[in-house]
Amino acid sequence: MVQYRELDRTLTALADPTRRAVVERLGRDGVATVSELAAPAGISLTGMKKHLRVLEEAGLVASEKVGRSRQCRLGPNRGDALASWINDYRTMVEQRYDRLDALLARRKGEQDGH
Amino acid sequence: MVQYRELDRTLTALADPTRRAVVERLGRDGVATVSELAAPAGISLTGMKKHLRVLEEAGLVASEKVGRSRQCRLGPNRGDALASWINDYRTMVEQRYDRLDALLARRKGEQDGH
Repeated sequence: MVQYRELDRTLTALADPTRRAVVERLGRDGVATVSELAAPAGISLTGMKKHLRVLEEAGLVASEKVGRSRQCRLGPNRGDALASWINDYRTMVEQRYDRLDALLARRKGEQDGH
Repeated sequence: MVQYRELDRTLTALADPTRRAVVERLGRDGVATVSELAAPAGISLTGMKKHLRVLEEAGLVASEKVGRSRQCRLGPNRGDALASWINDYRTMVEQRYDRLDALLARRKGEQDGH
């Protein structure tokens, strides 16, 4: 159940365009303060702090107090479990359709043969 | 904003282990009725119908009434946008760390040289 909960939290945390923009920015720039993240998103510091809490609970972001500001960077969760789940899922679906295609082709071959 | 909303809905729909189990099962078996999906999940028909509504809104599941039961199968959304986002994100993060590694190796080389 533990890995379930991590995947649930990752998906919930990334289900918001503001939060996806935060991890994209930290992935690109490395470090940013809460106010540097809030400004381009056009939201209040309080609003950004709420988003950051959701991202921190999912392990996607880590932060530390430096002087009077809080510096954010990527956390230990780099989305591996999510990438693994969605890629496995799509492979399974593709294989199912490949099998259906093969079955239909075989049936068509049998019909043409008779 | 339209593609944002589709990705938001996909992530929200998949952020629940019961709903992930439903799409995995439909991906594997093709078709199942609402009661066939509810039984192994150990939840009520009403509960499963709520989960299916979230999955249908995300385009992950499609259903149709056949006689007295409702048959479910995978919808048009096969998770391509989600796979694309998470794979691009991970590539970006890896490239950033590769650049940092290269920078550190170069600095170390300069120090050793002097």
